[in-house]
Amino acid sequence: MSSTAGQVIRCKAAVAWEAGKPLVIEEVEVAPPQKKEIRLKILYTSLCHTDLCFWEANKGQNTVFPRILGHEAGAIVESIGEGVTDLAPGDHVLPVFTGECKECAHCKSEVSNMCSLLRINTDRGVMIHDEKSRFSIKGKPIYHFLGTSTFSEYTVVHVGCVAKINPLAPLEKVCVLSCGISTGLGATLNVAKPEKGSTVAVFGLGAVGLAAAEGARIAGASRIIGVDRTASRFLPAKKFGVTEFVNPKDYDKPVQDVLAEMTNGGVDRSIECTGNVDAMISAFECVHDGWGVAVLVGVPNKDAVFKTPPINFLNERTLKGTFFGNYKPRSDIPSVVEKYMNKELEVEKFLTHEVSFSEINKAFDYMLKGEGIRCIIRMEG
Amino acid sequence: MSSTAGQVIRCKAAVAWEAGKPLVIEEVEVAPPQKKEIRLKILYTSLCHTDLCFWEANKGQNTVFPRILGHEAGAIVESIGEGVTDLAPGDHVLPVFTGECKECAHCKSEVSNMCSLLRINTDRGVMIHDEKSRFSIKGKPIYHFLGTSTFSEYTVVHVGCVAKINPLAPLEKVCVLSCGISTGLGATLNVAKPEKGSTVAVFGLGAVGLAAAEGARIAGASRIIGVDRTASRFLPAKKFGVTEFVNPKDYDKPVQDVLAEMTNGGVDRSIECTGNVDAMISAFECVHDGWGVAVLVGVPNKDAVFKTPPINFLNERTLKGTFFGNYKPRSDIPSVVEKYMNKELEVEKFLTHEVSFSEINKAFDYMLKGEGIRCIIRMEG
Repeated sequence: MSSTAGQVIRCKAAVAWEAGKPLVIEEVEVAPPQKKEIRLKILYTSLCHTDLCFWEANKGQNTVFPRILGHEAGAIVESIGEGVTDLAPGDHVLPVFTGECKECAHCKSEVSNMCSLLRINTDRGVMIHDEKSRFSIKGKPIYHFLGTSTFSEYTVVHVGCVAKINPLAPLEKVCVLSCGISTGLGATLNVAKPEKGSTVAVFGLGAVGLAAAEGARIAGASRIIGVDRTASRFLPAKKFGVTEFVNPKDYDKPVQDVLAEMTNGGVDRSIECTGNVDAMISAFECVHDGWGVAVLVGVPNKDAVFKTPPINFLNERTLKGTFFGNYKPRSDIPSVVEKYMNKELEVEKFLTHEVSFSEINKAFDYMLKGEGIRCIIRMEG
Repeated sequence: MSSTAGQVIRCKAAVAWEAGKPLVIEEVEVAPPQKKEIRLKILYTSLCHTDLCFWEANKGQNTVFPRILGHEAGAIVESIGEGVTDLAPGDHVLPVFTGECKECAHCKSEVSNMCSLLRINTDRGVMIHDEKSRFSIKGKPIYHFLGTSTFSEYTVVHVGCVAKINPLAPLEKVCVLSCGISTGLGATLNVAKPEKGSTVAVFGLGAVGLAAAEGARIAGASRIIGVDRTASRFLPAKKFGVTEFVNPKDYDKPVQDVLAEMTNGGVDRSIECTGNVDAMISAFECVHDGWGVAVLVGVPNKDAVFKTPPINFLNERTLKGTFFGNYKPRSDIPSVVEKYMNKELEVEKFLTHEVSFSEINKAFDYMLKGEGIRCIIRMEG
């Protein structure tokens, strides 16, 4: 039992006081975990595009401020609340923005990871047990984000939103497997499932798209075609197995036609990681008839409409979507960490920047400028 | 060797001289089979909706007349052309409107049945070997339909468009497995693949939809919900395993919402057999998030556009299409016949009418009136 168990912990957290304004490192109080909750000591966290979106909050998002953002992290269990049986203080974990209650129809399904109880909720700023925040400054609540709020030295999460991982795994690296990297990797390995020797197109070469390409590399795809409107993204993408690059801006015709010509009728698999609905349509229409499978990963605008002539389906093309790469957070994420441990998955390639916690706003600057892939934020030292 | 091998055969055929006009039984000459072709003696044939469409030819179809329609049939090989090694005179076969060359990328794929060489071609009225018709009347060509033209006592087909079946199977029954019944059955068994105990929605309770329901019954679905705008179709559908009926006309809200309410969030599988694009959208949007799979079977209008918010995919719904139930004609159709022989598949339920060849126009009348499911046309007696 840690000496802090059951006590309020005072620690540092980066608070987003209002949309788009730099985070401020504040001293916050973190209440003890309640029923089915655990309190985590965050060692490393990283910035994901979703944090940026809800910090900017300029595309129709509900604004829930003041808030502690952050959802990719490596952590150690500090203490556990009532009813927590499968985790103990000292366990190494990755908090996850969506959960797995293990009791609902989705958790009982072999294929779904969209837990009814703990499914991602971007609007909720409180814990589900008592609808209260565990964070406060001088008695005033600071809201949670995605049930994780990892931009804090300590945080409280629901036990269903935590993956217990191999304690030998370096948290400063595997912390990025909490979200984006697993999302892209799982989209390929769990949903698109390319065969060895096949041709895979990846739309969007950000972190998620590069992880999708990494998945195709691991699966043994022989051609991995990166599609992106930013030419400078090709060179770094080669490290992730991308063999060819197509910039839609270089052509007068739809990129699906370009890909069909390059591949004798279409790619075997495509993975859409931009969220742009036109890219989704291209990603679907570029797969080969008879066997092609397209997987949507990027989150669309609320009013987007996917449109295609239905004959494209009748000709035996499949369109699927995925959420968090179809990984169940508790059941499956530990095995993704093992993929890194056994050198199948190369995590280091994704880690392009590192800052100390006090410099957290730099991580936002890098992402706003499109620099690098993942910036690790060290909580200590 | 039959005495007619290598000779022109004079026999009766039902000729469609012009769009929408009753077929006329004529004496035709049927030339011997050429390279990779076989000549068949048709014993039983049946009328499928596709025959009706290309006979009416009032929805933008190319009009290829005079023509011998027909593509569902049970037949016996009369003679074989050069290079035919896996069939012999006397073999019992089902001609199929699409083929399997066994050499192209589709035939070599484990999942596709969309043969590059012999894929359905509704416009072609000649054989691919020499681009000529094998049918003539007084030297003037009569065109083929779908490479089968089974409304003739004898016909010539490509060897890749023929399934060799169990000679013990009654051709007057299994002839309907040439097209529509296999299409619906395969859509469920090969593509939707419902698990035992699951809930399946079938849109459109014509022959193909009823076969899809029969597939769901065979797969052990516990709820099979038939969706159709014609209330009188429910009672006969019960025989095919349909347990509940939804008529979209009875509701003020989209039928996908009705189905979601009936099923605690959506059906496990849906199969769309109407070809109407609004039904396709409903069929997709009515499947459960996390694991739902919708399969499109019905052939859409050329200018139809499928539209849905992409979040429906992101929430882990899958949309697939199928052609001929994903059955490879030569490799797989014999096993469908075996499903009938071992009493798994109940073919008799589909056979509601029977006429002699001279009464073939009656079969068209039944279909135009929406009477019954399949009308068998006896070539002899």
